[in-house]
Amino acid sequence: MRDVAVIGTGLIPFGKYPDKTLADLGWPAVKMAVKDADIAPAKIEAAYCGTALGGMMAGQRILGRVGLTGIPIVNVENACSSSSSALRQAVMAIRSGEYDVVLVIGVEKLTKFGGGTLPLEKEDWEVSQGLVMPALYAMRAQRYMHEYDLTPAQLALVSVKNRRNGALNPDAQMRKPVTVEEVLASRPIADPFTLLQCCPTGDGAAALILCEAKLARQYRSDPVRIAASDLTSGKYTPGFRDMTIPEITVRGAKEAYEEAGLGPQEIDVAEVHDAFSIAELLYYEAFGFCERGSAGAFIESGASAIDGKIAVNPSGGLLAKGHPIGATGAAQAVEIVRQLRGECGARQVPDAKVGLSHATGGGISGFDHGVCCIHIFTR
Amino acid sequence: MRDVAVIGTGLIPFGKYPDKTLADLGWPAVKMAVKDADIAPAKIEAAYCGTALGGMMAGQRILGRVGLTGIPIVNVENACSSSSSALRQAVMAIRSGEYDVVLVIGVEKLTKFGGGTLPLEKEDWEVSQGLVMPALYAMRAQRYMHEYDLTPAQLALVSVKNRRNGALNPDAQMRKPVTVEEVLASRPIADPFTLLQCCPTGDGAAALILCEAKLARQYRSDPVRIAASDLTSGKYTPGFRDMTIPEITVRGAKEAYEEAGLGPQEIDVAEVHDAFSIAELLYYEAFGFCERGSAGAFIESGASAIDGKIAVNPSGGLLAKGHPIGATGAAQAVEIVRQLRGECGARQVPDAKVGLSHATGGGISGFDHGVCCIHIFTR
Repeated sequence: MRDVAVIGTGLIPFGKYPDKTLADLGWPAVKMAVKDADIAPAKIEAAYCGTALGGMMAGQRILGRVGLTGIPIVNVENACSSSSSALRQAVMAIRSGEYDVVLVIGVEKLTKFGGGTLPLEKEDWEVSQGLVMPALYAMRAQRYMHEYDLTPAQLALVSVKNRRNGALNPDAQMRKPVTVEEVLASRPIADPFTLLQCCPTGDGAAALILCEAKLARQYRSDPVRIAASDLTSGKYTPGFRDMTIPEITVRGAKEAYEEAGLGPQEIDVAEVHDAFSIAELLYYEAFGFCERGSAGAFIESGASAIDGKIAVNPSGGLLAKGHPIGATGAAQAVEIVRQLRGECGARQVPDAKVGLSHATGGGISGFDHGVCCIHIFTR
Repeated sequence: MRDVAVIGTGLIPFGKYPDKTLADLGWPAVKMAVKDADIAPAKIEAAYCGTALGGMMAGQRILGRVGLTGIPIVNVENACSSSSSALRQAVMAIRSGEYDVVLVIGVEKLTKFGGGTLPLEKEDWEVSQGLVMPALYAMRAQRYMHEYDLTPAQLALVSVKNRRNGALNPDAQMRKPVTVEEVLASRPIADPFTLLQCCPTGDGAAALILCEAKLARQYRSDPVRIAASDLTSGKYTPGFRDMTIPEITVRGAKEAYEEAGLGPQEIDVAEVHDAFSIAELLYYEAFGFCERGSAGAFIESGASAIDGKIAVNPSGGLLAKGHPIGATGAAQAVEIVRQLRGECGARQVPDAKVGLSHATGGGISGFDHGVCCIHIFTR
């Protein structure tokens, strides 16, 4: 099977851009990735664009702005995993031999819906009765705290760490560090979550250029290899099993490690899906970064800080970098590639060689049906 | 490269189902395809679901109903080519060796938007000024009639033929045959189109099961081979070129014929994207079924009738079978497969050996950016 490498990354700072169109958001990220790869746009053979709520033909609208209209363009929707799923389609397309160079875009404009939780699909009766994302994750947090004596202060440390990292990231939406006391004193959202434990609403775009690995050095001397690309789905209806175990992430992690021939002990840096504070802790355990039930102690020890054992969410994660749904997976991959290249300045993870990105979600009307997409990168 | 065959087809009758959810629409088509393939659901390794306006996680919602939640599911959006693009992703995934058996779904519920033309993306200034789909195609029709002396009666023949075919198709939304006089006397929509020259609004779902060709005979004795799978995109802004030439279809047809090693003279049956009467005529020429400027004479001669030289839209096409956007590409493929198997009863094309499906569109806010997906099937 052919190998795939990343040769270009692009990202706009995440934030609120109510006056920009989806195309306005996307094309600068694409241009940056093209420039970063030092590639002629005509070499790009196909594009996959991930967006969850961007409407029809997002990729075509964006690429129309940069004159890349003649290539096959496919838009991919998989809730919070939209652009990581797009990345996986691009990986598969290059591995198959169909293309050598493929563009991946992630884009979302959430400000068009106003603030707060996302618009609901009426057909999901659980959501229509109030089981929106913050409530769902809050139930998981409650159960975890019941099972494992996680303290509210430990839970708040996720926001403290990720805000600290975000303050070092010029592309992050939230750049102000916060203390445990500030996190716990912020507005209650869904007990035990306060406002600062929920990812913000925002807009953003990210792009990557992928290339068949043998050709990659034509463009850059430091291509980053994609060692694993895994997509899983499954039910995660609360109640049908232990809601403190993110089953699809556990399964996906196992598959991704197998594909890469690597284990958690080899991961230097990870961008995981910290949509709410508890999420990051559950994923530490799902990825084997620490033992079951010990995630609170793990973060408290500093093990997941930038200079810790495994740097988790050095970008600031969803909590600080922001979470424009469809842009998230691509943006995570951009961060990992830049970390492995040593381009991350103040938030650089020392000597990062192996990185992991993880986007998982269930969609507006999809609490019943989760999706999880994991990539492992090596240099 | 590995070959891909279709082993199962499923379809619900297209129509208006305002009380059904997207999942309600989709799961019966999936079940029918599974039964048709005589395959154990556990053999299905992945699924691609095409929908343009179905909201987040359509595939997961549908497959949740039939217990197929653990497999990788990717939702694909490409306007009117959504499920044909999903079909192409499935073909690529099998060709690459990633999977042996893949499910394709196309689904849409347009009744949730009420009637008439689709909701608009505000960011497209042409659309917001009135250049909705009927208006765009009407301009093309006007220009074609100016250039080639196509008569209104010849134009109306597209609706007459497709309504005649639809009357023979129990799954068609419009099952009443109409005369040229009735077509021309129906309510004006966008000159020269009357109501009966515009595809109806409706809901629907279709599904296919694809299998690596060598394994296909384990399931069915009559697998239908996918000889070409092509996706193109491009601008089709009115005015920048001759709007009577559907450039992306012309380019896609050339690529698809090359991939299949076949030409228009070998096509027995085609499902082409007759969203409006003029469209079918333009596509006759784009596919080389007749000479440029002769499409009016071609249909008048009966060459595109079920018993003609090349049967076009024996299902009734978008004009009679209906056009639930995201379901259309998969439904076209279902029709072609069933025609090649000889299962089409009253609308069966005699001894059909080679078939073609063609879905093209530009999306709500994508007039500027077209997409075209073509498949060629052989038995």
